[in-house]
Amino acid sequence: MFFGTLGTLLRQGWARCNLAAMNATLTSRRRFLKAATLATAGAPWINRFASAAQADDPNRKLGFALCGLGGLSGGQIAPALSKTKNCRLAGIVTGHPDKAEKWKAQFNIPDKNIYNYENMEKMSDNPDIDVVYVVTPNALHAELTIKAAKAGKHVLCEKPMEVSVEKCQQMIDACKAANRLLAIGYRSRFDPATQECIQLAQQKVFGASKMIEAGFGFHIGDPNQWRLKRDLAGGGALMDVGIYALQATRYLSGEEPNIVTALETKTDPVKFKEVDESVTWQLKFPSDIIANCSTTYAFGGINSYTVFAERGAFGLNPAYGYEGNRGFRTDGRRIEYPPMDQFAAEMDDFAQCILKNKPSIVSGEEGLRDIRIITAIYESIRTGKAITLA
Amino acid sequence: MFFGTLGTLLRQGWARCNLAAMNATLTSRRRFLKAATLATAGAPWINRFASAAQADDPNRKLGFALCGLGGLSGGQIAPALSKTKNCRLAGIVTGHPDKAEKWKAQFNIPDKNIYNYENMEKMSDNPDIDVVYVVTPNALHAELTIKAAKAGKHVLCEKPMEVSVEKCQQMIDACKAANRLLAIGYRSRFDPATQECIQLAQQKVFGASKMIEAGFGFHIGDPNQWRLKRDLAGGGALMDVGIYALQATRYLSGEEPNIVTALETKTDPVKFKEVDESVTWQLKFPSDIIANCSTTYAFGGINSYTVFAERGAFGLNPAYGYEGNRGFRTDGRRIEYPPMDQFAAEMDDFAQCILKNKPSIVSGEEGLRDIRIITAIYESIRTGKAITLA
Repeated sequence: MFFGTLGTLLRQGWARCNLAAMNATLTSRRRFLKAATLATAGAPWINRFASAAQADDPNRKLGFALCGLGGLSGGQIAPALSKTKNCRLAGIVTGHPDKAEKWKAQFNIPDKNIYNYENMEKMSDNPDIDVVYVVTPNALHAELTIKAAKAGKHVLCEKPMEVSVEKCQQMIDACKAANRLLAIGYRSRFDPATQECIQLAQQKVFGASKMIEAGFGFHIGDPNQWRLKRDLAGGGALMDVGIYALQATRYLSGEEPNIVTALETKTDPVKFKEVDESVTWQLKFPSDIIANCSTTYAFGGINSYTVFAERGAFGLNPAYGYEGNRGFRTDGRRIEYPPMDQFAAEMDDFAQCILKNKPSIVSGEEGLRDIRIITAIYESIRTGKAITLA
Repeated sequence: MFFGTLGTLLRQGWARCNLAAMNATLTSRRRFLKAATLATAGAPWINRFASAAQADDPNRKLGFALCGLGGLSGGQIAPALSKTKNCRLAGIVTGHPDKAEKWKAQFNIPDKNIYNYENMEKMSDNPDIDVVYVVTPNALHAELTIKAAKAGKHVLCEKPMEVSVEKCQQMIDACKAANRLLAIGYRSRFDPATQECIQLAQQKVFGASKMIEAGFGFHIGDPNQWRLKRDLAGGGALMDVGIYALQATRYLSGEEPNIVTALETKTDPVKFKEVDESVTWQLKFPSDIIANCSTTYAFGGINSYTVFAERGAFGLNPAYGYEGNRGFRTDGRRIEYPPMDQFAAEMDDFAQCILKNKPSIVSGEEGLRDIRIITAIYESIRTGKAITLA
C-alpha cells in the first residue's frame, strides 16, 4: 500500500519520507533494499567467468570470491559482477555445503574455487582468486579479512567494517602486512547522485555548508535474524543503516567531526533487547558545520539527506537506495541519473585500485573512521555526555 | 530567486526546504514572515473599532490594547483584529510618541486609550480595554504582563513567554493574583493543518508515533536588531523560531520530554556574539518517542515537521508560516486548508476563554514549559551533558 503512494507523495513535495521503506509488510531488510534489482538476475554472464586470471594485464578481469552467500551476495553482488568491466565471479567461501552446491551449479564455479571458513588459507595457491569480498555478518569481518589477506588476497569488505575500532585496526594491519589492498563496501560513493552532491558541497556552489540533516531507517521484520543479535551485528540500526547517514555527513562536509551527542530510544524493548532500535545523533565539525541525524529499525520512510548552505540547499531523497536515488538543488535543477549499479561501480573501482596499485577512496581507514564515531555515539548514549573525538 | 523555485521544488518532492525562507536578500524576519499577508492591511475595519466594550454580553467585542508597535503588531496583529469576531483594537501601549501618533490616526484610537510603558497602571480605570497583547522584545514580557495584570487586564503575550523560567512564573503568579487570564501567542495551535496533525497523532491513525523531526530557521538580516541582543532577546534562533519546532514535538507527542541533549554551532561568531545562531537538539518522551530538531538564524529553507509512526507518517512543510501551511499523510491524502488568519483565531479563542472564564490551551503554564525545556537545551549545550527534566 505504501509503495503505491511513493510517487504521489514525492510529487506532493514531501521528503525524508521514502514511503517505499514504510511498507509495514516488509519482513526483511534485504527484501526491501534489493527491490527491483533482483529482476536482473538471469545469469547470462556465467560463461564469461570461465577464464582464469591473467597476471599483469591492466584490462584483465580480477577474480572475486564471494565470502558469505546471504541475500546481498545472491541478490546484488553476483548480478553486479556480471556488469563489471574488470571483475568476475571466480569463487565462493561459505559455511553451508548446500549453498556451495547451488552456487556451483548456478554460476559454473569449479570445485577448486569453492572454500569454507576453515580452509580459506588454501586460497594462497589459487591464482583464479584476486579478491575476497566479505559479505558476512559484521562480527566475522575481521577474522575473514585477515584470513584472506594472509592468503595473499585483496579484500573488499561490506559495511560496517567491523564491530569495534580494534578489530578494524587489525584488518588494516593484516592487509598492510600482506601488502594487499583493503576497501569497504560503501557503494553510495559510486552513485553519481551522491557524487554530484559531494561536488556541490566541495565547490561551494551554494556557498559554505552550514547544516546537514541525514537519516536512514527501515522497519526490520524477522525478530530472529542475525542483525538483531549483538554477537553477530555488534549494534543495531546505527551500525547497519545509520552508518549511511553518518558517512553522508562526512563525505558531504569533507571533514571529521570533533563532537558527538546522541540519544537512543526503544519502543520495542523485547525485539530490540540486544541492539539499538532508534538513535538520533548530532555531530559538530571543525568548520562549524553541524549535522543532525536519525536512524531506526522501527519504521520506514526515512532515507534522505539535505545540505543547508549559505545561499541554498541540496540533497537526495531517497539517498541510500540501491538505485533510483535522486535529489534537488535550490537553483531549480534536478539531481537525477540513468540507472546504474553501485555494486558494479564499487567493484570496478576496487579492481582499478588493484591494477594501478593505488588506495581506494573507501579504504579500511575510511571504514575505521565511521566505527570510531559510531563507538562515540554509543558512548554518548551510555554516558549522557557529549563525546569529543580526537 | 528562491521564491520562484519554491513551487517547483515542492512539486519535485523536497521537504524541510521552504525555499521562500532561503531568499538571501531578506533583511528582516518580519519581512519574511509577514509576506503576502501585509497586502490585506487596507484598514476597512477602522470604524468598527469605535464602540466601547459592553460588560456581560457574551457576544461583545473585547477591547485589545497592543503593547509594542513593531512589525508584528502592524503587519499581522492589527490586520488580524479586523478579522476577529470577539476582539477589536481599542488601544495601544508604546514607548514611541511618533508611533502613537501614527497609530492614533490610522486606527482612530482615542487619546484616552493610548499608553506608554510607564503609565500602564492607569488602564485600571479604562473599561475600553479588556486585554493587553504584549508584542515587545522577549525580556520585557514579564514586566509588561505584570503591569497589565495589576491594572486588571487579561494578557495575551507573544512567544517566547520570557527569557527565564523565573520570569515566566512571575507572570503566571501576577495574573493569578489579579484573577486575570494569561495566554501565549502560539498561533500555530489555531492552524487547521496543525490541528489535523495533532488529531492524527492523538487518534493513532498511523499507529503509535515513533519519531518526530522538526526544524524551523531563517536567515536573519540586520545585525543590529534586538533579536541578536542577549539583554532583550534572552537567546537567539532557539528562543525565537526553534520554539515553534519544540512546541510541535510537544503538541504532536502530547507529552513532556524527560531527556534533552543539544549541540550549538556558530559559523558567524561576530554577528551571533550574544545569542545562539544554530542549534540542534534531541528530546526523549516518556512513551519513548524521540524527537530530532534544528533551528538556525544562519540560513533558510528549514520549516517543517514529520511524525514517523508505526504504519505511516505525516507532517507539514511549511509548518510554521503565517499562512499556507500544508502537509502530507501516507494514506495519500493532502493536508491543506483554505487561507485563514492564525492571529485572528488565536485572539478569538482567547476572547472566548475570557467570556466563558476558562483557561486557554496556550496558557502561561504552557509557555513556561517551553522555556523550561529551552533552558535545559542551553544547559546541555553549556555542560555537554544530557539533561534530565523533572
